[in-house]
Amino acid sequence: MARIVQKFGGSSVANAEKIKNVAKRVAATADEGNQVVVVVSAMGDTTDDLIDLAKQISLDPSQREMDMLMATGEQQSIALLSIALQELGKKAISLTGPQAGIHTDCVASKAKITEVNCARLEKELNAGNIVVVAGFQGLSPDGEIRTLGRGGSDTSGVALAVALKADLCEIFTDVEGVFTADPRIVPKAHKIDSISYDEMLEMASAGAGVLQPRSVELAKQYGIHVHVRSTFTQNKGTIVQEGNKMENLEKEMVVSGVALDRNVIKVSVFDVPDEIGVASKLFRALADARINVDMIIQGGDRNRLNSITFTTGKDEKIKLEKLLNDVVPKIGAKEYTVSDGVSKVSIVGAGMITNPGVAAKMFETLSDNGFNIELISTSEIKVSCIVKEDRAAEAVCLLHTAFDLDKE
Amino acid sequence: MARIVQKFGGSSVANAEKIKNVAKRVAATADEGNQVVVVVSAMGDTTDDLIDLAKQISLDPSQREMDMLMATGEQQSIALLSIALQELGKKAISLTGPQAGIHTDCVASKAKITEVNCARLEKELNAGNIVVVAGFQGLSPDGEIRTLGRGGSDTSGVALAVALKADLCEIFTDVEGVFTADPRIVPKAHKIDSISYDEMLEMASAGAGVLQPRSVELAKQYGIHVHVRSTFTQNKGTIVQEGNKMENLEKEMVVSGVALDRNVIKVSVFDVPDEIGVASKLFRALADARINVDMIIQGGDRNRLNSITFTTGKDEKIKLEKLLNDVVPKIGAKEYTVSDGVSKVSIVGAGMITNPGVAAKMFETLSDNGFNIELISTSEIKVSCIVKEDRAAEAVCLLHTAFDLDKE
Repeated sequence: MARIVQKFGGSSVANAEKIKNVAKRVAATADEGNQVVVVVSAMGDTTDDLIDLAKQISLDPSQREMDMLMATGEQQSIALLSIALQELGKKAISLTGPQAGIHTDCVASKAKITEVNCARLEKELNAGNIVVVAGFQGLSPDGEIRTLGRGGSDTSGVALAVALKADLCEIFTDVEGVFTADPRIVPKAHKIDSISYDEMLEMASAGAGVLQPRSVELAKQYGIHVHVRSTFTQNKGTIVQEGNKMENLEKEMVVSGVALDRNVIKVSVFDVPDEIGVASKLFRALADARINVDMIIQGGDRNRLNSITFTTGKDEKIKLEKLLNDVVPKIGAKEYTVSDGVSKVSIVGAGMITNPGVAAKMFETLSDNGFNIELISTSEIKVSCIVKEDRAAEAVCLLHTAFDLDKE
Repeated sequence: MARIVQKFGGSSVANAEKIKNVAKRVAATADEGNQVVVVVSAMGDTTDDLIDLAKQISLDPSQREMDMLMATGEQQSIALLSIALQELGKKAISLTGPQAGIHTDCVASKAKITEVNCARLEKELNAGNIVVVAGFQGLSPDGEIRTLGRGGSDTSGVALAVALKADLCEIFTDVEGVFTADPRIVPKAHKIDSISYDEMLEMASAGAGVLQPRSVELAKQYGIHVHVRSTFTQNKGTIVQEGNKMENLEKEMVVSGVALDRNVIKVSVFDVPDEIGVASKLFRALADARINVDMIIQGGDRNRLNSITFTTGKDEKIKLEKLLNDVVPKIGAKEYTVSDGVSKVSIVGAGMITNPGVAAKMFETLSDNGFNIELISTSEIKVSCIVKEDRAAEAVCLLHTAFDLDKE
């Protein structure tokens, strides 16, 4: 008997029919004699619909109240999936994040899981139940319902797998696994059978969107094998696990995948005084407001010295502008611009470490095709470039071909 | 400074625009220097939509999971109303039923409030917050989210008014108050300015639908003044309070109102053995299954002796038939019929007690107009008759005229 955590995303439970199909799949896993804990996201577009509703009332709703609102989406899914499992004759029970013992810190809308108290989960498993847990949410020490940020259900799934010492964590999604690029953009993209935690992490932060980066970090930290696979087929998907480095170097591609992140805005602050600590004041203010900054370049503007440019997510725009209106004069800078017509294109691959010239090849490919690269950032196994949004998909296709990913 | 509990029903918060209007109304009450606790129901048809969704998955979903599902409707409303209040510059915080300290028994879908622990509520009020509480829900001792049954938000509102020693409980709805009959059925129906708890209770159980009977019982028990009024106008509605008996007898109508309840099914069990305890076995089984039985007649069928006939709500039909298939053979009865083409018409009035002949006048009015009365039940201040559903509205109009309610 194995203990398996299965996580189903919103598109897998988008309507009654799909929920019934997920129930069949979960029941089949239980019928094989496994203990099963299921983590589900909100149905289909529920989360977006709730955000739209809130925005009709306020352009800047309080995050505490947004957590209260958003947590309902997952709560609906768990009840409906439990009903579907019971309809199949299975013993099943739904638990909200707080009921499942998922504890978080007190940060509204972007809480981090601090602990999972498994008492209730173990009790329900021992009673022979399939336990259906609401992803994306937990209880903070001050008794509030907190959400983990977009895609947080992946993190809930992996955290439960860690806490319950599960043998496997399956992440079900609407695609067959992790691909060399988004198949909607690159028709020749193909599924990757196995990927290392580090590569997956870079792919995820680069916008590949299959797994939330935090869930990959957590899986890496505790060595949880994650199987990313399709809800709609029985095919084997992509296994995320510790990479066999030697094998990678010998047999695998230098570049494993090309990712595209459209959720990018570029912010430039101009005429920043050339004093020690000015940049740190700016980024401290951003950090305190819980705005995640991705790429940062100082003095990167051709015409003006002392400018600071960085990127962040589009959903931060209102909060960001509010903050910059306050902070930019305080640090003695003159003005700032926010531009949202840009995207981030990244290449990822563990093989990069020992293959010099990969970044150069990327820049050449882009510039040969007339792209202006607005920002660059690199890590050991990733190179990212900010380009204009309207040609970003084209850049992904060009890089997919340039790095020999078109042939399977 | 007064302490006021305001309850807004689902139609009052059906969309973003309506929620903003409710927020203005609540804010105005707070601006007058009052402490305000707001109780809200789920938006518009949310509850019905959630039930439909569950029914697409199972015709007989577990009530524990239905509670999990339904509790989300109110949770969405409280978050959105708090956001709307904050947008108006007010301090506001939403609390789920469990967070607000509303404790219930362990009966899924029909839980009763056992206690309200006001610690968190008082803390938030003292911090200057308008507190927005989810109606219809609470926490049972086993850590489960329970709902109070349809219309339970009224009961939440009154229970909070009791626990917080509020000066007033305002129940906002989509009508101007309690009417002598449903104005959609009786065009000449008019608003009642003041009604006693007992009359309101009978009106409510007779299907007048403005207040949940349990909330009226609770208000009566603790002497809470309830003001039933319109969300959409500033008009004075109907005050529900202890009746001034003398005044009632001298000045008021013998009959205060005529109510219609379409949510009725009539059940007859035939050839019941003539033994002691048989009827009690049947009704014990119904009670154990938490099926509320309304009118009961034994031996009331012309053609067969030893039959038992009773009425209950339409929503109990599936559960009821399941139970009767099991219980009817067990008590040695031969068969049963369930008929749902019937409605209950009631006349209510405190003046009835001292005015003999009211029931007789009701029966005459109906029979003179060709109605076959299928069942009758009476209380001190109410007479109810079961008639065919297709002419029930006509019966209400006839009785409204017969008891002099057409003139204001």
